[in-house]
Amino acid sequence: MSAARLTSRDIRSESRLVVMRALLAAGESTRSELAEATGLSLGTVSTIVQDLLKYGIVVETGLLAKTVGRPTTGLRLNADRGRVVGFYLEDRYLETTVFDASLGRLATVEVTSEEPVEDADAVIEWILDALDAALGEARASRDDILGIGILLPGGMQRPVKAETVPSAIWLHLDRLRDSLGLPIVVDNPLKAIATAELWLGAGRRSANVVAVSLGIGVGAGIIQDGAVVRGATDAAGEWGHSLLAFEGRLCQCGRRGCVEAYVGVPGVQQTLADTAPGHPLTAMPPDFDFIAALSEAFTAGDPDAVAAVERTAEFLGAALTDLVALLNPEVIALTGWDSAAAWRERVLSIVRRRVLDDAPGDAAVDLSIEGSGTCGMDGIAAIAYERFMRDIGLVTTRVLPAL
Amino acid sequence: MSAARLTSRDIRSESRLVVMRALLAAGESTRSELAEATGLSLGTVSTIVQDLLKYGIVVETGLLAKTVGRPTTGLRLNADRGRVVGFYLEDRYLETTVFDASLGRLATVEVTSEEPVEDADAVIEWILDALDAALGEARASRDDILGIGILLPGGMQRPVKAETVPSAIWLHLDRLRDSLGLPIVVDNPLKAIATAELWLGAGRRSANVVAVSLGIGVGAGIIQDGAVVRGATDAAGEWGHSLLAFEGRLCQCGRRGCVEAYVGVPGVQQTLADTAPGHPLTAMPPDFDFIAALSEAFTAGDPDAVAAVERTAEFLGAALTDLVALLNPEVIALTGWDSAAAWRERVLSIVRRRVLDDAPGDAAVDLSIEGSGTCGMDGIAAIAYERFMRDIGLVTTRVLPAL
Repeated sequence: MSAARLTSRDIRSESRLVVMRALLAAGESTRSELAEATGLSLGTVSTIVQDLLKYGIVVETGLLAKTVGRPTTGLRLNADRGRVVGFYLEDRYLETTVFDASLGRLATVEVTSEEPVEDADAVIEWILDALDAALGEARASRDDILGIGILLPGGMQRPVKAETVPSAIWLHLDRLRDSLGLPIVVDNPLKAIATAELWLGAGRRSANVVAVSLGIGVGAGIIQDGAVVRGATDAAGEWGHSLLAFEGRLCQCGRRGCVEAYVGVPGVQQTLADTAPGHPLTAMPPDFDFIAALSEAFTAGDPDAVAAVERTAEFLGAALTDLVALLNPEVIALTGWDSAAAWRERVLSIVRRRVLDDAPGDAAVDLSIEGSGTCGMDGIAAIAYERFMRDIGLVTTRVLPAL
Repeated sequence: MSAARLTSRDIRSESRLVVMRALLAAGESTRSELAEATGLSLGTVSTIVQDLLKYGIVVETGLLAKTVGRPTTGLRLNADRGRVVGFYLEDRYLETTVFDASLGRLATVEVTSEEPVEDADAVIEWILDALDAALGEARASRDDILGIGILLPGGMQRPVKAETVPSAIWLHLDRLRDSLGLPIVVDNPLKAIATAELWLGAGRRSANVVAVSLGIGVGAGIIQDGAVVRGATDAAGEWGHSLLAFEGRLCQCGRRGCVEAYVGVPGVQQTLADTAPGHPLTAMPPDFDFIAALSEAFTAGDPDAVAAVERTAEFLGAALTDLVALLNPEVIALTGWDSAAAWRERVLSIVRRRVLDDAPGDAAVDLSIEGSGTCGMDGIAAIAYERFMRDIGLVTTRVLPAL
C-alpha cells in the first residue's frame, strides 16, 4: 500500500460520518448543536444535513422549543431507513442480530450445532435460515436490508485451516452474496470493536482510543487520530499475540508467552491451576461460566480464587501498560470477561495503578480505563452501514475495510 | 483531544508535502513524473508546483531532453532557499547540524562537556555558541535560517527531573527563542525518526512503517496510513518500555522486563554478562564502542560473544514481532547499534525468521526488515522545515507536533 492520498471527497465523506456519529450520540439534535458538537461550521453541517435528508439517512423531527430564541428544527438518524444485519460465526455457533438504521438492536437469534458446521453449502444454509428467523423476530424482510456484516474471529489466531468455517466463508463469499443478493462486508473483530467505539463508545469524545476485547482470545481495536488503525494487511491490533513473558506459557497460537496465554479465559484458568493445582474450578470448561464461578469464589473469599484474580490483574495491567507505551491512548475501553466478574473493580484498580504508575513518561496523564467497551457485533453493523453509505455515494472507500 | 476534523486546506497541505517528498526522492523531476509518482492528477500537481515555485521552495532547472516527446521543464527542491538547523542535546553532549532546504547535511559540530551543563543560562549559551560554529562551517549566517529543531531524548525515559537539561530547555524555551529570534520546534526522537522515514526513508514507498531506533535506549517511530502516530500526548512509540519479560530484568526506567533492558546497549552487555560472567568486554562502558568490540569478538568466533549475540537476536526478534502483531507494518526500518555490528546480517536473519514465522495470522506477508533506517537529526530537520512551511502558510498545523 503506498502513501494514502486524500481528496476533497474524502473530507466530505469523513465530515458526513462525523455528523452522523454526533447525531447518533445526541439522539435528537439541531444543526447548530451539531456544529458545536463536531467543530464543523454551521454552513458545512447544513450542507451535510441536506445530503443526509435527501438520502433519507436523517429525518426532521419537527420544531424543538428552546428556552432561549426561536424554535429550531430537530434532527435524528432515520432508524427506519432500513435494517442492517450482523453475523458472528464460529464452527458450532452462529449469532445473527438485526439492527435498525440508527444501530439499535431489534432482534438476536443464536443457533448452536452439536457438530461443527463445515461444509460450505451447510454453512450458507445455516446463515440463510438464521437470517430469516432473525428478520421474522424483527418484523422485517430481506428487502429492508441495507447491508450485511460478517464478523470472522479467525483474525485473532493463526491462519485457520482451509476446511474450517471462516475459511469456507472466505472461499464461498461470492456464492453467499449471490444467494442473498445483498451487499456483504466481512471484517475481523478487532476492526469491528474499534469501529463500534467510533460510533457508539469512547471514540465519540476522544481521537485516541484502544478498545480491548477480553474473551477466550483477546485483542485490541485501535483508534488513532480519529481513524481505525488497520495496518498494511488489515491485521493490526493483535495485542493477544504480543509478548507478555519471553519463553513463557505456551499459547494456542503455537508461540510462547503471548498476552492471550495469560489473560484469555483459558489463561486465567491456567493461573488458578498454577496457584492451586486440583482446585475444583480448574475442571470447568474455560468459558465465561468459569469466569463467573471464579468471580463468585473470589467474592466468597476463597484464598486461591483471590490469588488467581490478583495475579490475573497484574498480568492484565502489565499487558495494558504495553498498549499505553506504544500507542499513548487517552482511553482504554475494556469489554468481555471483565464485565462478567464481580471483581471487576478490583482488577481495574490494579490495572489503573500499574498503568498510571508504571507507564513511561507522561503517557498516562489523561488515560482513562473504562469497562464500558462496545462489542464486535455493534461494530460489524456500523461497518456494514458505512458500506451502505458508500454504495449510495455518501462515503468514500477510505473509511472501509479492504474487502 | 477530540476527534480530528479535516478541512480542504489540510488536504492541500498534505498534497504539497507529498509532492515535495516525491521531488526530494527523485532529485530532479517533472510535473508529469510527479503526478505519476504521487497518484495526484497533473492539474493538482501543477497547481501545487506553482505555489511552491512562488514561495521559492521549488526551482525550475531548465528543459530536460526526453527520449520521447518534446522536452519538459525540470524541477527540484530549492536547496538554497535557506538553512535548517537541528540540535541534539544531552547533559554533556550537544550536536548541531546545519541542513540545506532539501534536507542535505552541510555541517555538523559536536561539543562535549566534562561536567553536565545544567544551568539554563549555560545551556542557552552552549547552544548559541554551537550554532554559530556550525553556521560558520556551513558558510551560512543566522539570517539564512528558516527554522530550528531541537531533539530531546527525554521522551524515551521516565519524566526527567526539573533540573536536568531537557527540562531546562522546556522551561526556558521562550528565552531561547527570544535570544535566537528564530522559529523553534522541539520534538522527541521517536516522532523525529518517523518523520525522517516519511521524507527520506521507507515512508516514501509505504504508508505503514515502523522505524526502530537501537541505542543506549530504544524506541519506535510509527507511521500508519501515511502519517506519524503521535498518540494523545505525543508519547506514542515507547516500544523500549513495552514488556519483553514479565517480572524480568530491571530497566533503567524503574520497571521490570522492558524491551530496552534486553536490546538497549546496556542490555546487550548484561546478556553477555549473564552468559559469561567476568568476560573482559563486560568491563567496557555500555556504548557503541562496546557493540563494535562485541562485534569483533563475534566475528573472531569467541563462543561467549556468539552466544550473547544470538541471545540478543532472539530478544530483538521477539520484541519486533510485538510491533508486527500490534501495528502490522509493511516495513520495519532499523537504525542504531545494528548498523555498527559485523553480525548485523546474522541478527537480521534471526529476526526475519522469528517475525515471519511467528507473527500471528498473515500479518507479516509483506513485511520487509531493513537496516537502512534514518535518524532523528534528519527527522528534526524535516519537522523544522515543515514548521517553516506552516509559517509561510503552505502547510496546516495538522502535520506538526503539538508544540
